[in-house]
Amino acid sequence: MNILVTNDDGVTAPGLLALAQAMRAFGEVKILAPDHNWSGGGHVKTLDRPLRVKELRLAGGQIAWASDGAPSDCVALALHGFFEDKFDLVVSGINPMANLGHDVTYSGTVTAAMEAVIWGVPGIAFSLGSVENDLSISNFTSAASIAQKVIGAVIQCTVPPGILLNVNVPMLQESQIKGFRTTRLGLRVYHDLLDRREDPRGLPYYWIGGDIPTGIPENGTDIGALSDGFVSVTPLHLDLTAYTAIPWITNWHLNVNTSITNQLPILNQVLLER
Amino acid sequence: MNILVTNDDGVTAPGLLALAQAMRAFGEVKILAPDHNWSGGGHVKTLDRPLRVKELRLAGGQIAWASDGAPSDCVALALHGFFEDKFDLVVSGINPMANLGHDVTYSGTVTAAMEAVIWGVPGIAFSLGSVENDLSISNFTSAASIAQKVIGAVIQCTVPPGILLNVNVPMLQESQIKGFRTTRLGLRVYHDLLDRREDPRGLPYYWIGGDIPTGIPENGTDIGALSDGFVSVTPLHLDLTAYTAIPWITNWHLNVNTSITNQLPILNQVLLER
Repeated sequence: MNILVTNDDGVTAPGLLALAQAMRAFGEVKILAPDHNWSGGGHVKTLDRPLRVKELRLAGGQIAWASDGAPSDCVALALHGFFEDKFDLVVSGINPMANLGHDVTYSGTVTAAMEAVIWGVPGIAFSLGSVENDLSISNFTSAASIAQKVIGAVIQCTVPPGILLNVNVPMLQESQIKGFRTTRLGLRVYHDLLDRREDPRGLPYYWIGGDIPTGIPENGTDIGALSDGFVSVTPLHLDLTAYTAIPWITNWHLNVNTSITNQLPILNQVLLER
Repeated sequence: MNILVTNDDGVTAPGLLALAQAMRAFGEVKILAPDHNWSGGGHVKTLDRPLRVKELRLAGGQIAWASDGAPSDCVALALHGFFEDKFDLVVSGINPMANLGHDVTYSGTVTAAMEAVIWGVPGIAFSLGSVENDLSISNFTSAASIAQKVIGAVIQCTVPPGILLNVNVPMLQESQIKGFRTTRLGLRVYHDLLDRREDPRGLPYYWIGGDIPTGIPENGTDIGALSDGFVSVTPLHLDLTAYTAIPWITNWHLNVNTSITNQLPILNQVLLER
């Protein structure tokens, strides 16, 4: 079995090394990950510039490859032939902070697994529910062991085609973890604020700042599971269609022959009522 | 009504100007868009560096702002207070090439609309089904008129909360467009290949190359609608949960107390059978 390990924190991140070591129980492990941090980098396909790949050695002597592309680019590089191997699995992480709810649309950890699934390879993303990014490899021991259990099950039971798994592990000793829950995405609550500053030359620049996201710990959700001390395993797909909204939109009876000027009085009426 | 116009092709793209002009029928238009092309850039939240914003004038004298962030960052800047205005709508595009099926996870045009919806503002993405990127503003006349009809309906009828619209317009004269279809996402077929080259110093670099994506023009899908000469209007949400896979994963009976070494013989058995 050939397993690709990647992440979004960069190839030298301790969470990646912990995951790669855990994956050796299942076969041959190759590491191809970004050469710098791509957190919040989204599902990227880099088409406007070529990518470079460099070989390096991680702590402990493990050979790895670093690319100047995004996590999803690293997966594309690996699956389209950078290595001679074909891959049976793509695992991504371990991200030091949880990826819950809407985070999955931003997260490089998760979008790497999306890219794998688009190319027909099972993709599994692992994140740890820490409240800080700056962790050592020993902080990932418990999550790496959980990752082995999940990947063991994936290999035995297989994942349905088109499905990726988003796994979040609470920041607890393994003996303190209460179990696993299969979950849906919960409602993430972001607290972003715009922080306007001036540089030494008096020119403005803008940080996207604010407190770290919280969430609604509803039962059945990834946020609820993590908050209760359980590992959340959320199956995701790439069909973002909001099926329940299809009849709503259909009832608009949009028509190419409708003149926009005919609509305007009604629009203005609506505007007046706001 | 305050409308934010953005895109992923960069603030000077003709598709953005066509959309901004069309939106003036509905109220005050502000433009804040990337200062360069972010196509395929994904749903980005830039947290590791500050963003700069510059004012400029587009062809025709329209004032606009350009940021060095991604399309979703531009939306965040606008909604978190770069302008004094509160926005009623965020419209993104008009992208010269269609955004269909899995494209919506990569597309800066669509992820800008996602960002709007996360912050409670309706987001609508517009793309044109051209087979090339290099178009002039006159190529967007028909799509801009379609965008007016869609936004007219959005204002009159409202979009359910949490829903963004992904609109694709066929590359036809408006009189040739057959109508509107409310659709689901179809199956996009990518043809990416890794193209390894060597620079003048003999060092390798890698392009993600290959033919442009095709798709399965199934009835009911965005790909089918566009292929039949209809405008596709696809309602999207950010709940990527694959609900039908939840029982499958639950049946794995994952257990924190299971030893990975107990599982290995079974795993090896599976491996032998591959």
